[in-house]
Amino acid sequence: MAKVGVKSVMKKLAVIGVDVGGTKMTAALATESGQILRLLRTQTKPEEGAKGGFRAICEMVRNLLREGKQKGFGVARIGVGFGGPVDFQRGVVYLSHHVQGWENFPLKAEFENRFGITTSVDNDANAGTLGEWMFGAGKGINDLLYVNIGTGIGGGIIADGKLVRGWRNLAGEIGHMTVKPEGPICTCGRNGCLEALASGSAIGREGTNRFGRPMKSEEVFQLAEQGNEMAKQILAEAIDALAFAIGAAANLFNPKLVILGGGVGEAPEHLLIEPLRARLPRYTLPQTAEGLEVVRAQLGYDAGIMGAVALAITTIDAEG
Amino acid sequence: MAKVGVKSVMKKLAVIGVDVGGTKMTAALATESGQILRLLRTQTKPEEGAKGGFRAICEMVRNLLREGKQKGFGVARIGVGFGGPVDFQRGVVYLSHHVQGWENFPLKAEFENRFGITTSVDNDANAGTLGEWMFGAGKGINDLLYVNIGTGIGGGIIADGKLVRGWRNLAGEIGHMTVKPEGPICTCGRNGCLEALASGSAIGREGTNRFGRPMKSEEVFQLAEQGNEMAKQILAEAIDALAFAIGAAANLFNPKLVILGGGVGEAPEHLLIEPLRARLPRYTLPQTAEGLEVVRAQLGYDAGIMGAVALAITTIDAEG
Repeated sequence: MAKVGVKSVMKKLAVIGVDVGGTKMTAALATESGQILRLLRTQTKPEEGAKGGFRAICEMVRNLLREGKQKGFGVARIGVGFGGPVDFQRGVVYLSHHVQGWENFPLKAEFENRFGITTSVDNDANAGTLGEWMFGAGKGINDLLYVNIGTGIGGGIIADGKLVRGWRNLAGEIGHMTVKPEGPICTCGRNGCLEALASGSAIGREGTNRFGRPMKSEEVFQLAEQGNEMAKQILAEAIDALAFAIGAAANLFNPKLVILGGGVGEAPEHLLIEPLRARLPRYTLPQTAEGLEVVRAQLGYDAGIMGAVALAITTIDAEG
Repeated sequence: MAKVGVKSVMKKLAVIGVDVGGTKMTAALATESGQILRLLRTQTKPEEGAKGGFRAICEMVRNLLREGKQKGFGVARIGVGFGGPVDFQRGVVYLSHHVQGWENFPLKAEFENRFGITTSVDNDANAGTLGEWMFGAGKGINDLLYVNIGTGIGGGIIADGKLVRGWRNLAGEIGHMTVKPEGPICTCGRNGCLEALASGSAIGREGTNRFGRPMKSEEVFQLAEQGNEMAKQILAEAIDALAFAIGAAANLFNPKLVILGGGVGEAPEHLLIEPLRARLPRYTLPQTAEGLEVVRAQLGYDAGIMGAVALAITTIDAEG
């Protein structure tokens, strides 16, 4: 639990979470146990660049601080989940994939200077992992793997009750594990990454290629649901790639639970999770596969903001 | 550091490490910082079963306790590295691959009853990882991957200064990561595991198959050193498989360092580590590959006993 000073002992403790995404930015005031007291949301305006985005999130944070004060809360920590790579130790954004001008932006220092509150900044995959672990499908599980399958594939690992960040905060990149060395080219420039075989974009690309007309992953799932053999084959190949990569991770980390999130993760269970469960033992040691559960993420639309809140809370616990 | 009681404050602190291997059993009295004060060794006698083995290690421990007392040391912890799977939490051996009768042997409880000293028991891959991290090539590195390439392939992961054990103490099994789904059958019964492609046995098997006469991995390395093209090709394939698996692990947990141990790990650097370094970027995200070091293990013949000593020391630190 947080160590509290004399002054804050007299107040109820709260945190602020901020989720900086490509389409929307969200900020929330939450209790120490993650109950949302107030939520603010605004559209991301890429044309206003990092400067405009930063101004907008600062305004939301200011409003939440004011509201917290009125309600008798002291804000112990701010957590920011950012849609792009982040140097967690220094709290510096490397870049945004959606908005110009975030390159090497010292978000932690800027927040701390402005608001006088210790701030943790991390990428949204790490924050999302913490969110599902604290508030979602992973509650109470000390060893888990989170895989977010959307346009791309990201992920995170909780080992012995702690997020694995790695040397340079680059851990969790299951989407760029090579599955088929001669497979299709990936956004990262290499061939046959999991992301190039099993993401929403990859499934849509295969649908487009094989059906000969533009197709999104949703339609491939719909066609498979209707019994279309070609669509079922596309999904079987994507699920085989997922089993390969998740099995590799399971052999390395021996998790109790795998959580599938993101848009593709929300596909009907019998089209994704059930066949994945059946395929995992092909790529996983028997003892490791035994009792390994695969479930859907629970936070859905709220994953981003609950991840930012979880980041704030866990970094209080870690650092006092 | 260890929390010490009133009584032990008056003594110098020591630990005892015990390495139970398939060919030899070793026990050592060491200082809290891992300096070996006394080392005892005995041959493993499989014909005497677990009972005989247990008797032999108890005798070594008793002798070391006596010697420690004479030298004014209080033994704070015993660490046992065991050559087979272990339930670390309960300190129960699942089985030995070499000696009958170890099935479900409660080694921790038996030691604690006999000697009155808290005892940690783990498999030798985990102990070996801790040893290289505390005393070998991994000193001072918080995020590393240890890969032991011998007859089989084992390994371990240190993430943020802590051994990753996983839910059931089965983590670190990089040897059973699938690399080629249609590849040769592995000891685990599945196809194309790293161990079936890059272990000493696998390299020897390929030599035997391609040269048409019985061959061990050492000879394949010798022939490659002399410029033999077929031997060079066998090594190139094994190294490609290693790069595949190590790259996958690096993408997942972003280590600073990869340590290669075991018999094959001792091959000349220009035949193994240099080509491996060159091949890693094929399977690793650029940012993750950048600055990732690959080095040879340092403990060699002493890996087992230093691992057991490291296990004793790290579990004092963790549990007080």
